[in-house]
Amino acid sequence: MKTEDSQPRQRLAILGSTGSIGTQALEVVRRHPDQFEVEILSAGTQADLLIEQALAFKPNAVVIGEEGYEKVKEALAETDTKVFAGEEAMSEVCAFDTVDTVLTAVMGSIGLKPTLTAVQHGKKIALANKETLVMGGALVQEAMTQSRSVIYPIDSEHSAIFQCLQGELMARVEALILTGSGGPFRGRKAEELQAVKPEEALKHPTWRMGRKISIDSATLMNKGLELIEAAYLFGVRPEQIEVVIHPQSVVHSLVRFCDGSVKAQMGLPDMKGPILYALSSPDRLEESAAQTPRLSLSEMGSLTFEAPDRKNFPCLSLAEAAARIGGGMTCVLNAANEVAVAAFLKGEIGFTAIPALIVRNLEAAEGAGAAKRGRDLQDLLALDGETRAAAREMIEKNRI
Amino acid sequence: MKTEDSQPRQRLAILGSTGSIGTQALEVVRRHPDQFEVEILSAGTQADLLIEQALAFKPNAVVIGEEGYEKVKEALAETDTKVFAGEEAMSEVCAFDTVDTVLTAVMGSIGLKPTLTAVQHGKKIALANKETLVMGGALVQEAMTQSRSVIYPIDSEHSAIFQCLQGELMARVEALILTGSGGPFRGRKAEELQAVKPEEALKHPTWRMGRKISIDSATLMNKGLELIEAAYLFGVRPEQIEVVIHPQSVVHSLVRFCDGSVKAQMGLPDMKGPILYALSSPDRLEESAAQTPRLSLSEMGSLTFEAPDRKNFPCLSLAEAAARIGGGMTCVLNAANEVAVAAFLKGEIGFTAIPALIVRNLEAAEGAGAAKRGRDLQDLLALDGETRAAAREMIEKNRI
Repeated sequence: MKTEDSQPRQRLAILGSTGSIGTQALEVVRRHPDQFEVEILSAGTQADLLIEQALAFKPNAVVIGEEGYEKVKEALAETDTKVFAGEEAMSEVCAFDTVDTVLTAVMGSIGLKPTLTAVQHGKKIALANKETLVMGGALVQEAMTQSRSVIYPIDSEHSAIFQCLQGELMARVEALILTGSGGPFRGRKAEELQAVKPEEALKHPTWRMGRKISIDSATLMNKGLELIEAAYLFGVRPEQIEVVIHPQSVVHSLVRFCDGSVKAQMGLPDMKGPILYALSSPDRLEESAAQTPRLSLSEMGSLTFEAPDRKNFPCLSLAEAAARIGGGMTCVLNAANEVAVAAFLKGEIGFTAIPALIVRNLEAAEGAGAAKRGRDLQDLLALDGETRAAAREMIEKNRI
Repeated sequence: MKTEDSQPRQRLAILGSTGSIGTQALEVVRRHPDQFEVEILSAGTQADLLIEQALAFKPNAVVIGEEGYEKVKEALAETDTKVFAGEEAMSEVCAFDTVDTVLTAVMGSIGLKPTLTAVQHGKKIALANKETLVMGGALVQEAMTQSRSVIYPIDSEHSAIFQCLQGELMARVEALILTGSGGPFRGRKAEELQAVKPEEALKHPTWRMGRKISIDSATLMNKGLELIEAAYLFGVRPEQIEVVIHPQSVVHSLVRFCDGSVKAQMGLPDMKGPILYALSSPDRLEESAAQTPRLSLSEMGSLTFEAPDRKNFPCLSLAEAAARIGGGMTCVLNAANEVAVAAFLKGEIGFTAIPALIVRNLEAAEGAGAAKRGRDLQDLLALDGETRAAAREMIEKNRI
């Protein structure tokens, strides 16, 4: 895919290319062939889609989960694309000299190690994996100090804040204000939430998203994870981050400065905007109105805002509490949440059992000294594993 | 007022210090005595207030209209403050070596000459006088190319755009979006507007303003003048500027970029914010929440937006048309509007006669070649004077 452009194109490794963010990232690449080329694609289980993507974008290499290896290897045998398998390979390709930018769009804690590898090798990071900073924020921050790596956030809230901070001094920031749609159950009380089913929770009002994030959005844990992520990404205290519910999802987030001035970034809900900005920042690439429909405030008519319902959706406050204690506590929060959400999606536990399970795990972990854990990747992954095992056990023994 | 600070303070000339913007600018100076000192104060007729301000801020010099000279001279005889009189003096003090920044808060076309002088002498300009750019935008732009002068806008809309453009490339701007409250007559039809009285028009829903601007706000001419000003200030075509009505006056204006992303600047309606930003930009100075109350979106609840009613409030489209033709046409628009507003405030003409008078003057002026006039200050002031005379004559002879 080399052309004789005067400007070298940005060479991308896209981890999680068959997921919601990954496929949208490839759509962005397809629109701007003069700017980007695909060097690496990586997927977990969706071998067929990965093969299709590899044939279309002709990457140097692909990585697939162990089970899909033979199928992908065979399908790409006639091409120049190398095929690797497994989690370890996903980290190794991030160190390739031919990669400029690593776009981390895998879901869950497996995103941490490849992102850390990319940071250590001075790559530009386009980060859509929340767990990297929620679990390993302190580790990533430390690795950044010894690297020329820069992290460009991909989710809409952090991208909005990042855009609002362009040309501003961090020392003048008073507060970051995250907006959230409030999820599909906004306005419901705890009693009504007890019996909700996974299918209802998966119907997100404004954003097209994966299953795990849709549940996090319904519990408001999504906003809590974003709060933790924002604290690490922008170097602010958790107390400096506010959350406001904004059902139309048009104001993507805001920054308030020390003089009282507030800046916001807006747009129609579409993840391709943050993806494109992460790849092109600090410049912007042109998108036609057909590609990215323009926001019309007069057609919107009204934008509404309300305080989050922390009582009936306690996950937000749980995340804030974990962020304030710090250390390994956000890793515990994240692991317990992943187990709880998976159990809810399987019908093993109810919706309100999600925060209940997290509370029990946070309490147990704090008592066991988790705030001082996770100072290296090995211990962090151990803490993650221990929490998952403990949470699974609570579910299996009906202890919630 | 010299102190032994390590950082030299910014030395200000405040033209129009007794008006709405001028008094608020002095309030800002009073809050940040380590940042600013007052070098010059200038007022038209309010001698008593000017004397009071001079005694409080101890400027190097004051300028007052001819009629107030003796009174001010006598009152400040015992002080170190020099006293000058008249319009010419107001321009001369802008060239003083001891002035870093000229804050132009005088109303009307008399603001043009001192601002041009300040530009020619490389001063930083904090501009609250719309007419400088509406009448003399081309002249000011030309003078800027031969000067190290920079213009920082003071009204809330342009300040918002200026803030949104920090860290961005002008070549990536797709549109500037000016917000306007819609004024006190939003929603009324032309038939209902015929009989409205000046007192009603002076009741602005959200902003505390002078009489002239209040009427301009009621006719939407205010937004039209801002559109012309924005085109010169930011170097964009009039076609790139949109207007949206936003009655809460919380979103102060927006910028849309070539990738579809929109940035907005927000805050509670308070002119001290734009004044402070113009003086401190690109840095920001800390204001406590007691000094500048913070915007709470959840307390606001709802922000509404609608398209401007161009049919019943034709002044906006008249301004756009004048801007597109360019040359001296915006000078004609402004002069005719000033005469019309003064006549309306005196009860000589009705509210809907304001746009009618402007249309007649624009048509006559275009026929007489006004689009090619105003290439130097003398011809511009001549065109201004001719238009005023013609407009007065139409009113006196009941030709509207």
